[in-house]
Amino acid sequence: MKEILRLDFRNMLRDTVGRHGATPAELQKPGRQALRYLQELKEERSNGQHQFLDLPYQKEVAEKIKKLADELRSWMTDFVVLGIGGSALGNIALHQALNPPYHSQEGKSRGVLRYAPTPRIHVIDTIDPDLFAGLLETLDLKQTVFNVISKSGATVETVAQFLIVKEMLKKSLGNAYTKHIITTTDPEDGALRRLAAKEGYEKLCIPKGVGGRYSVLSPVGLLSAAVSGIDINALLAGAAEMDLQCQKETVEENPAVLGACLQYLSYKKGKHITVLMPYSAALKAVGEWFCQLWAESLGKKFSVKGKIIHCGPTPVKAVGPTDQHSQLQLYMEGPFDKVITFLAVDKFKSRVKIPLSPETDFEYLSGHTLAGLMEAERRGTELALTQAGRPNYTIYLPEITAFHVGGLLYMFQVQTALAGKLFGINPFDQPGVEAGKVNTFALLGRKGYKVGATE
Amino acid sequence: MKEILRLDFRNMLRDTVGRHGATPAELQKPGRQALRYLQELKEERSNGQHQFLDLPYQKEVAEKIKKLADELRSWMTDFVVLGIGGSALGNIALHQALNPPYHSQEGKSRGVLRYAPTPRIHVIDTIDPDLFAGLLETLDLKQTVFNVISKSGATVETVAQFLIVKEMLKKSLGNAYTKHIITTTDPEDGALRRLAAKEGYEKLCIPKGVGGRYSVLSPVGLLSAAVSGIDINALLAGAAEMDLQCQKETVEENPAVLGACLQYLSYKKGKHITVLMPYSAALKAVGEWFCQLWAESLGKKFSVKGKIIHCGPTPVKAVGPTDQHSQLQLYMEGPFDKVITFLAVDKFKSRVKIPLSPETDFEYLSGHTLAGLMEAERRGTELALTQAGRPNYTIYLPEITAFHVGGLLYMFQVQTALAGKLFGINPFDQPGVEAGKVNTFALLGRKGYKVGATE
Repeated sequence: MKEILRLDFRNMLRDTVGRHGATPAELQKPGRQALRYLQELKEERSNGQHQFLDLPYQKEVAEKIKKLADELRSWMTDFVVLGIGGSALGNIALHQALNPPYHSQEGKSRGVLRYAPTPRIHVIDTIDPDLFAGLLETLDLKQTVFNVISKSGATVETVAQFLIVKEMLKKSLGNAYTKHIITTTDPEDGALRRLAAKEGYEKLCIPKGVGGRYSVLSPVGLLSAAVSGIDINALLAGAAEMDLQCQKETVEENPAVLGACLQYLSYKKGKHITVLMPYSAALKAVGEWFCQLWAESLGKKFSVKGKIIHCGPTPVKAVGPTDQHSQLQLYMEGPFDKVITFLAVDKFKSRVKIPLSPETDFEYLSGHTLAGLMEAERRGTELALTQAGRPNYTIYLPEITAFHVGGLLYMFQVQTALAGKLFGINPFDQPGVEAGKVNTFALLGRKGYKVGATE
Repeated sequence: MKEILRLDFRNMLRDTVGRHGATPAELQKPGRQALRYLQELKEERSNGQHQFLDLPYQKEVAEKIKKLADELRSWMTDFVVLGIGGSALGNIALHQALNPPYHSQEGKSRGVLRYAPTPRIHVIDTIDPDLFAGLLETLDLKQTVFNVISKSGATVETVAQFLIVKEMLKKSLGNAYTKHIITTTDPEDGALRRLAAKEGYEKLCIPKGVGGRYSVLSPVGLLSAAVSGIDINALLAGAAEMDLQCQKETVEENPAVLGACLQYLSYKKGKHITVLMPYSAALKAVGEWFCQLWAESLGKKFSVKGKIIHCGPTPVKAVGPTDQHSQLQLYMEGPFDKVITFLAVDKFKSRVKIPLSPETDFEYLSGHTLAGLMEAERRGTELALTQAGRPNYTIYLPEITAFHVGGLLYMFQVQTALAGKLFGINPFDQPGVEAGKVNTFALLGRKGYKVGATE
């Protein structure tokens, strides 16, 4: 069994961090509950629920996507994802974690082809007109493919983007335009799906029962990953391996159960803010993906029993060491309302040696590497927070590969499902966003919609 | 007087938003206090404190920087800022707000020069070895300038970056390397300053008494802005105009006083989280800049009187409409622990028309623009939050120009200084980050440092 991650939670305990930490007795109760909920989850899964848990095993889908990606890579220079929320964050997370840092910013720069000629990836998760116009200016439409992703097929931002792009493509490429659009939607329903069938676009499916924020390992995330050259088989293998680890029936052995317990208990102890702080530029967007998963899944007005509870931890994304110079002051000295999760990387691809320095002021850096400095800073910060009585724990990744990232994302999804059960809410819906949509439709003059009509 | 911004706070009032809103009486007390503190601030300023308030008037500095920038632009293709925290966030904010969205991602792409040949700007605010190695790979050192920014001249991350870059430059360019480094530091002190004097680098000064997070309008932010083609005179003119508005002695007329009161009162009413949500991709990094300013300034253990208070709102960055599909569910239904500030833009540079759509499902979008959709979404969200009893207010910018952004940043700084006084803390220090630094030095084996020595 290959190690995907280790979780060190000693700084969550009263013995280490003081009165804001948990006693072993305090941990036991949610631990027992979470193991019971794990059983429930397994039963529900075997009854056909929680299809996101089975995404790692979609071998045929992965093969189809790899073939499609290979075909696209033979002629395409730019791959644009049009999607928002769950249709974008997973793509961004995979791309940032697993491709070289300047992958999509450099095509051919100053005449020098600096990277393998994989297409550039753009994930456009906004309708900002200046950004969208700016993007369109940089594209050569003849060599560009647009992947329109919307579970419902009716997401207003994505549909608006799609309509603009479709017209541009038609104008510039005529009937051949259809091979520049690929839709990823519900397998049966939705306006976009119907249109795709009519016009003859390539179609991918988001399996029934897989919600947007749980869809990264479905075609939603897999196509852009494969197109950019990420090994999606390894990604799914890591997730499958993590599936096994997330079925273990002790708190210590099961990182999803442990993470859910630590987060739930922190909330109950008044830590309503949860900070995820990777010490890695590549994992920054994994933090943003997690923030959606956590916020939208757990922020709920009603319990599953229909009681008004207004529950939900607020996730905050940070990144080390950058935010030591931005947020750490608050984490060290502000209210005791936070729990901090570090993401640490054992082994970076590069180390980057800091040269011997004759200037005595900087002598202490001689012989170190940026990788070593990064870890010293993380450890230094972790220790300082612990000394200051601030609960924190660390998830260590051995390295950042498709296998490890697949496992990490899978673990966070299982953790979220279990946390939903601990909080007593439904982590798979998002009823609270309806009112804003209705208002927007009303303001746009759409028939049958009135401002405030959901109240 | 040119309008820089408007602030609409009706959704902060009990009449509009319900019991989580403020009554006029509740607003009066902090209003009176804030106006008294405004007097205090003015007196302190006339006694030589708060030099950041006078940055808009540094005409000679601006002229020097423009000349330097013009010279650099004549031969340079890449300008790299090495800095972290306050030495980076302002640069990123200006660059993202005021340059075209793909400005620095495209030099010459696929043989087509798509933008004016201004240099690309890279702000490297991390020591992530993979990112740093990736950056160095994309640069042509002969045409690159590194701006090393550190107030103290001893920031460990920046010094490490600098040492690596210096050696690379020396190896590849010999003695001519010195013209590829510009330092921006304290005018007198610091190891970096001494080294710059010895080696003969171009030197810029951060005026005495201007802390990192208040330095965006000093050479810290101005040089990279000027180099990228931003009109720094307009930037400073907007700030100067805002200086006048922030001296007005009524709550309604003074946006900094009003903002400080609204935020302070929200905190006192249990809203410990403050969300800044621009509906603009260009202003996203202004949000990140604000998060540092707010967190590091107000997150404090001790009051100015020496009492332990552990105070500090937690700023959260969001962006619309993207985070409607990520965080809004939590904001709508979660705990009543947030106040939300929208940043709205009246007029984007592009509008981007959505084509007439024969597909009836999408007919309601016909005739709208992305800009119009953006504002309908913001309004729809604002109304939904208000209906759900969630206090929020909106800062409207007429458009995103250097003048308006200069004014906005200046306003936030004054707001922070005043909020510091309302909270009874010192918003200009950051004692809490010392412990982490000491631990890091100890872990690196630096002489004279021990883990936990600050406890």
